[in-house]
Amino acid sequence: MREIGIGLLGLGNVGAGVVKLLKDNAQAIEARLGARVVVHAIAVRELEKARPVEVDRDLLTRDVAEVIARDDVEIVCELIGGADRARSAVLEAIARKKHVVTANKLLLAMHGEEVFAAAEKQGVDVYYEAAVCGGVPVIRTLREGLASDRIDAIYGIVNGTSNFILTSMASVGRPFADVLADAQARGYAEADPTLDIGGGDASHKLAILIMLCFGVTVDADEIFVEGIEHLDPIDFVYARKFGYEIKPLAIARQVEGEIEARVHPAMVPQTWLLADVPGAKNALYVHSYALGASMYYGAGAGMMPTAMAAVSDLIEVARNIRAEVAGALPLRSYQALVHQPLRDIAELRCRYYMRFSVVDQPGVLGRITTVLGNHAVSIAQVVQEESARPSRPDGDDTQGTERPVWVVVLTHEAREGNVQQALMQIAELDVVVEPAAVIRIAQYIVP
Amino acid sequence: MREIGIGLLGLGNVGAGVVKLLKDNAQAIEARLGARVVVHAIAVRELEKARPVEVDRDLLTRDVAEVIARDDVEIVCELIGGADRARSAVLEAIARKKHVVTANKLLLAMHGEEVFAAAEKQGVDVYYEAAVCGGVPVIRTLREGLASDRIDAIYGIVNGTSNFILTSMASVGRPFADVLADAQARGYAEADPTLDIGGGDASHKLAILIMLCFGVTVDADEIFVEGIEHLDPIDFVYARKFGYEIKPLAIARQVEGEIEARVHPAMVPQTWLLADVPGAKNALYVHSYALGASMYYGAGAGMMPTAMAAVSDLIEVARNIRAEVAGALPLRSYQALVHQPLRDIAELRCRYYMRFSVVDQPGVLGRITTVLGNHAVSIAQVVQEESARPSRPDGDDTQGTERPVWVVVLTHEAREGNVQQALMQIAELDVVVEPAAVIRIAQYIVP
Repeated sequence: MREIGIGLLGLGNVGAGVVKLLKDNAQAIEARLGARVVVHAIAVRELEKARPVEVDRDLLTRDVAEVIARDDVEIVCELIGGADRARSAVLEAIARKKHVVTANKLLLAMHGEEVFAAAEKQGVDVYYEAAVCGGVPVIRTLREGLASDRIDAIYGIVNGTSNFILTSMASVGRPFADVLADAQARGYAEADPTLDIGGGDASHKLAILIMLCFGVTVDADEIFVEGIEHLDPIDFVYARKFGYEIKPLAIARQVEGEIEARVHPAMVPQTWLLADVPGAKNALYVHSYALGASMYYGAGAGMMPTAMAAVSDLIEVARNIRAEVAGALPLRSYQALVHQPLRDIAELRCRYYMRFSVVDQPGVLGRITTVLGNHAVSIAQVVQEESARPSRPDGDDTQGTERPVWVVVLTHEAREGNVQQALMQIAELDVVVEPAAVIRIAQYIVP
Repeated sequence: MREIGIGLLGLGNVGAGVVKLLKDNAQAIEARLGARVVVHAIAVRELEKARPVEVDRDLLTRDVAEVIARDDVEIVCELIGGADRARSAVLEAIARKKHVVTANKLLLAMHGEEVFAAAEKQGVDVYYEAAVCGGVPVIRTLREGLASDRIDAIYGIVNGTSNFILTSMASVGRPFADVLADAQARGYAEADPTLDIGGGDASHKLAILIMLCFGVTVDADEIFVEGIEHLDPIDFVYARKFGYEIKPLAIARQVEGEIEARVHPAMVPQTWLLADVPGAKNALYVHSYALGASMYYGAGAGMMPTAMAAVSDLIEVARNIRAEVAGALPLRSYQALVHQPLRDIAELRCRYYMRFSVVDQPGVLGRITTVLGNHAVSIAQVVQEESARPSRPDGDDTQGTERPVWVVVLTHEAREGNVQQALMQIAELDVVVEPAAVIRIAQYIVP
């Protein structure tokens, strides 16, 4: 039987999953492919190390170049992570006319154009299903399933750690730091969680999705990003009062010929399927011209789900090799890619939730709403709690004689630039005690 | 620019959508494909007829064979529907080495093996994304996205009409016949709705999904089917009391080396994402070894969503033609197909909801539970309403001196064969007034 040789770069969690899945499902994969997929070499950082999967010691080497250069390696599976080392490894593989499967969103967000251009020139495949939403096949869906459609907007929960933390904050009412510590203890958050909770990881994935959806490359660094660290348990209580859940969203939309892209926690109506995406799960909600609303949901991270996506890519590249068409079919968007700057975030229009901590004295509400009104931020709903404001679910209530009260405002659709100016002016009012809590509302009206 | 010629069979709703989408998105499709997709001929039943889309009168013909035979037609897009005429048209197209795109689930459920064997022999592509879940790309997902995985079970809402009716019954509390009439008036149900509400349509789609998921062909006629006509509004009230929604499910699972397949209304826990699939929407919930739970959601019917799937298939086949690999890549499952009988439905094990109408006299509950117990059907929960039973939401209450009461039972997991025997015996009890309402509970415990 024909063998397709794989060189694996990296044997961390996902790499171990790839080895395990290729072994566990070997028979089925052979039957589907009419060929055997064989790992011939694995580049690792440390040769001696306990691993979650049994691996023949002879396969291991510390030399990435050696793996890539082997004659019996037809596909290089890059699972090193990071941008720089992965970039040089992948470009080296392409230069040697090896096909590439990668799970590296950072690599593609930062150096995607360079990688794809090199692959096109050399006539090799680059597959990357595992880079976004883990095992959920959103790349194939956008590239092929919706190939005939015109995508208007995507709303994604693409970072499992953030979703896990917000789901926990909503259900247990504990503060961010506690929930993060718990998530770290349970393996849902890394020791340094900055990239996940700060929104950086989501912005890399969003850059890749924008390329697929709109045929446009953007600077991932230009995407507006707001993390989830500042969220207060009390805002989850208010969210539910108003019929919303707070979810970590990555959003890209076509607005007046420009692309609006942003990553931030958002209030999502409870009637919207996205509001029900629990725990560490991911989901991508797509709105397109012909299909209307569609959603793709599942495990966005983890050893086996991510490995599943990578091995499905290996199967597809292996299939292309067997059919002698590897490198011949378009593999990113079908479109010619155009670089485009993103729409100025100040031009964003959406509804806003705002919670102000103010001293409890007459006329305060009027002063706040006046400032908002002066900036054309129109109010849909106001809740001013009397002394009987809801107690913080974390019990962390300010006690004392001059206990502040909360004024909670839901606005009509307003312009982000105006909102920010109004908020700055309100922050300077002498009656305002703490910075306002502000959460954008994501509302998709299903037609 | 290279042109790929299409012959369209049928210009109903979906056919008109295909024409419209090819026109509306012509520029984007050209850019993605590097080729122009051109409809050269359309077979219709009536030449003169008002249509939802403007079509050049010269393209129309009543002769299917003429469309297929044209030299400039490289892909035949079959949208006639039905089994027999479509079968002969598709086989004729394949015999003439034309590639085929079809939306015809009946054709594939009944004659799939014959069609695929002919296509393989002739070296042509047969694509059929539009046959299941309309525009939601579940075929590609199962075939390619999850190619490396091993699927354990699928739970689908694959019939939009049934989901629309059950969603309406749940929200308005009106009887089945009223809601059906309303659905017909609003275009969500056909004049003869038998195939939709009886489960036949779902069983055809399930047969196709089973082929993709398990590499097994089955007789669609053998799939256990129960329609939704018998559902009573009161059972929706009880369902919610117990934390469930009633949804029209198509289920296939691997159980002890056999395939269990069934189509019936089911109680779905409200915490399960499937419970939130509203209106006429479709969704496929998949559980697989490596990925775990995943779900694919969107419009399962309608002119533009279904046309979107068909045109995405046309683009993919056109792409294959351009890359000179049409017919060379495996297109159903990757697996060799094996015919297999289905698991005996009597062996099904699940939990059950049962509502008995009984005369209001002492000892009745005991007699019912004794029969259940004798058949090893163990009870998890019982509600016996006193005279203050909840009134039927449709107001259709039986009045009179000997007003029956309801005994509602939730069982533990039990064997279908035993349950049916117990129910027959209970029906013969003199205290039982009406046939029992019985709804299977579909419970997937997310790991």
